[in-house]
Amino acid sequence: MAPPLHPDLDRIAWLVGTWRGEGEGEYPTIDDFAYVEEVTFAHVGKPFLSYVQRTRDASSDLPLHAESGYIRSGETGGFELVIAQPSGIVELHEGELTGHTLTFRATGVHVTATAKSVTDVVRTLTVHDDELRYALSMAAVGRPLTHHLSATLLRADAG
Amino acid sequence: MAPPLHPDLDRIAWLVGTWRGEGEGEYPTIDDFAYVEEVTFAHVGKPFLSYVQRTRDASSDLPLHAESGYIRSGETGGFELVIAQPSGIVELHEGELTGHTLTFRATGVHVTATAKSVTDVVRTLTVHDDELRYALSMAAVGRPLTHHLSATLLRADAG
Repeated sequence: MAPPLHPDLDRIAWLVGTWRGEGEGEYPTIDDFAYVEEVTFAHVGKPFLSYVQRTRDASSDLPLHAESGYIRSGETGGFELVIAQPSGIVELHEGELTGHTLTFRATGVHVTATAKSVTDVVRTLTVHDDELRYALSMAAVGRPLTHHLSATLLRADAG
Repeated sequence: MAPPLHPDLDRIAWLVGTWRGEGEGEYPTIDDFAYVEEVTFAHVGKPFLSYVQRTRDASSDLPLHAESGYIRSGETGGFELVIAQPSGIVELHEGELTGHTLTFRATGVHVTATAKSVTDVVRTLTVHDDELRYALSMAAVGRPLTHHLSATLLRADAG
């Protein structure tokens, strides 16, 4: 039986569950692309949500991107987000909650020796009823902070 | 049907699967503790392994630690590891392969504003047949690099 959600997470309880939908990507250095996505926010009763995400190419259905990490409560009513990516990138964020919108601004983006350069990331997540929308901007390969991804996902499982 | 393993990962194909077992933790600043653990290294045909780990207290069976990340090939025959932890910590490592032993030394350890200070981590993973042993040393809360965790896991699923 699932334990109760930790009280630190009450204000973002609406994130918990599995979400599926479609997204679009763009960046000045690459061709536009479309993807299908599954995201899960889960908990074990401790004061963090685990986050796992996978995308597949909308045409070929081949695996595209993946990432995983955790959201935990931060200072002064905010939330912290840490993420690891198979592209050799890790992100640390501080996030503000406004209504059902979380805005995460990177406090650090670090990459391995063979990874592409990424220096800044901003991630926005909004939930209205059973619809989750997110947008991601990044500064990468020498470009300033630029819109990269947006997606609309529907709740598939209450988690 | 599972896709074939990416050739970049052939030299660590023996990691793929799910592993379960027991471990022990110690650190100068805390009481010793024992835990049960499940680790999964999985792949989707792309040149990385995903890594997910969860431990539970050996006595109470309550969730203890969790972490997730990715291993990918690095420079000069090495491997890179990135990890995110719900304690607000991310790690980047460069690893050397010797036989069936991977030794990962952190090239960066970064923490969020509310996380405990961790400044260095070394992780060693060895597989013999169906047994995986790992050890983790860390420099944390002002202490130098010190042994923290060791565990012995058995292969539970070939993945």
